[in-house]
Amino acid sequence: MSLKDEDYMRFALKLAGKVAGQTSPNPPVGAVVVKEGQIIGFGAHLKAGGSHAEVHALQMAGEKAIGATIYVTLEPCSHHGKTPPCADYIIEMGIKRCVIAVSDPNEKVAGRGITKLRDAGVDVELGLLQEKAEAVNAAFFHYIKTKTPYVTMKSAVSLDGKTATATGDSKWITGKKARLDVHEYRHKHDAILVGVNTIIADNPSLTTRLAGGGKNPVRIVLDTSLRTPVDAAVITDNQADTWIFTGKNVPDEKKKAYQQRNRVTIISLDRDQINVSAVLQVLGSKGIMSLFVEGGAAINGAFLQENLLNEIIFYIAPKLIGGKTAPTAIAGPGFQSIAETLSLRIKDVEMIGEDIKIVAEPKKEELDVYGNH
Amino acid sequence: MSLKDEDYMRFALKLAGKVAGQTSPNPPVGAVVVKEGQIIGFGAHLKAGGSHAEVHALQMAGEKAIGATIYVTLEPCSHHGKTPPCADYIIEMGIKRCVIAVSDPNEKVAGRGITKLRDAGVDVELGLLQEKAEAVNAAFFHYIKTKTPYVTMKSAVSLDGKTATATGDSKWITGKKARLDVHEYRHKHDAILVGVNTIIADNPSLTTRLAGGGKNPVRIVLDTSLRTPVDAAVITDNQADTWIFTGKNVPDEKKKAYQQRNRVTIISLDRDQINVSAVLQVLGSKGIMSLFVEGGAAINGAFLQENLLNEIIFYIAPKLIGGKTAPTAIAGPGFQSIAETLSLRIKDVEMIGEDIKIVAEPKKEELDVYGNH
Repeated sequence: MSLKDEDYMRFALKLAGKVAGQTSPNPPVGAVVVKEGQIIGFGAHLKAGGSHAEVHALQMAGEKAIGATIYVTLEPCSHHGKTPPCADYIIEMGIKRCVIAVSDPNEKVAGRGITKLRDAGVDVELGLLQEKAEAVNAAFFHYIKTKTPYVTMKSAVSLDGKTATATGDSKWITGKKARLDVHEYRHKHDAILVGVNTIIADNPSLTTRLAGGGKNPVRIVLDTSLRTPVDAAVITDNQADTWIFTGKNVPDEKKKAYQQRNRVTIISLDRDQINVSAVLQVLGSKGIMSLFVEGGAAINGAFLQENLLNEIIFYIAPKLIGGKTAPTAIAGPGFQSIAETLSLRIKDVEMIGEDIKIVAEPKKEELDVYGNH
Repeated sequence: MSLKDEDYMRFALKLAGKVAGQTSPNPPVGAVVVKEGQIIGFGAHLKAGGSHAEVHALQMAGEKAIGATIYVTLEPCSHHGKTPPCADYIIEMGIKRCVIAVSDPNEKVAGRGITKLRDAGVDVELGLLQEKAEAVNAAFFHYIKTKTPYVTMKSAVSLDGKTATATGDSKWITGKKARLDVHEYRHKHDAILVGVNTIIADNPSLTTRLAGGGKNPVRIVLDTSLRTPVDAAVITDNQADTWIFTGKNVPDEKKKAYQQRNRVTIISLDRDQINVSAVLQVLGSKGIMSLFVEGGAAINGAFLQENLLNEIIFYIAPKLIGGKTAPTAIAGPGFQSIAETLSLRIKDVEMIGEDIKIVAEPKKEELDVYGNH
């Protein structure tokens, strides 16, 4: 494959990246159609139920698609879902060569799309920029493999690692741009998770507030004893669904005040204490593919200790707070030795306004191809 | 002044930056001589007592200096010190134009060099890249103004802001490259400061260990009750001077075991508790112009609380440690509200091996031109 091929695939990946988060439960996919060195069509899958990326791109190309090359970030589907199989459409439109970044782990596809194309005489090349495609589809791949959501943890800290002063003041550590960036992540995730202490302390709405609107994630509250105030914003504001996880010992009587609210669901686990692994199982079974964890520190500690983090985002503000007892981003018992700590790979470091944004993920050696530990 | 002028001054600043730290108590200075668009000489002040930058550069230029322009990062001196006045030499060599980044705040110079040059008919232009020159000379300017050392605080933390696990394991949080970088800072500072708890816990040598050698800073230990073990490396290894600051209540008898050691000095403050401002006064009076603070957390907290930090360096390792009680970089009481916290300006963010290095300074609004609060 040539440098030119890489250029086109990069463009397709860019298209997929742009729609990441809005296609759930489908993966974000981009496609580019090229003939004689000219781009004659491109597209992305915009929303579950809508046309796939290949269809948009091929429709833009029209009859010119005959003899052209199509670049797709994910293996074209081979089965009838809400839309007809893309592999069939590619063949029908007369495509000569199909370059695919990565095969689809979904058991309904899993190589069948490629086989169908090859059987019809299309030249298929697989694996161009595979790693980048896996990154764009990380949540989808993780969910397909584990049936649990891809977990991104976010924290906002001072340069000296504090999330608040010793007396608890935390408004605002980071600047406006960083706080807006957080809303982009809320938009891109199926669900957002906090502990009940965060609800009690801050009464957050946990909705997506972007200039042009945005999709609200399902709001997940971990609340063993059901201490969420009945007048909390997440209970009363009707802006998004709220699922409260409790332990098994909450009386049904107590739940009623919440259950009579619109869009509020109480999910009682069959155990005394809430266990985050069990929560992820339930969320996965309900189709939540991506989860944005906004803490606080004890919740973050539970995810760290159970090794359930897939991506970690820190916003570091140019401030020194100090204080031996000032809280940090991740509490819980923590690891006992440096050798046991979770090793990360830094994916990105950038300035966002006056703050520094760091994106990291658990080191690859410790993960399988689907991003699992 | 032209873009070309900026280029030459940038080169002179680069030369000054290369020798920063090795010229104490003199400032690092660079000079470039240019004639008809050709660089005909350049130099830097390499060591106190040796030739000044202008002399090296003019000697390289030789007779060609007649009618040339000299770019200097700091106002040429006008007084006889260990070497003759550079202003005189510039005039003598026939320089036509002298471009200076910043005037020398040293009361022995303070504009007299410029006056002397102008009186002799040299065209003098002042202020080109002044801010960058002030940054290169930050420690010198600060010291001249305050008579106390320029303070750089360094810490190495995990991404979640911990300096060790809850059980105290801290070896090693950062990688080899970051640790080597710390030795560059030790080389460039007149003194290094730690608390006695760091000595007791780690028994560090606090020397500069670089592949090609390096200058050891004076080792400062804050130790109110003189608890430094008499067999600690800083007492016995003879690698550098060690100054132990104590409170006033340490019996002379107890000091003897230390005082009989080579290169160990005990400085008892006239107060019960050690106060870092008082320590800086003493260090300044002893000619320490730059101080590298390596903690621990309580010491860092004292410098933060008294607003004595001039530069802050954090090495952030790609690790998550977790733990509610795991130590952080800056302890002490800390600030009570976010509004009171020390606001920083991020000067630099870079990857250093697998770690992230962040260099910051207190925000300029809160500083005067000499970098003081």
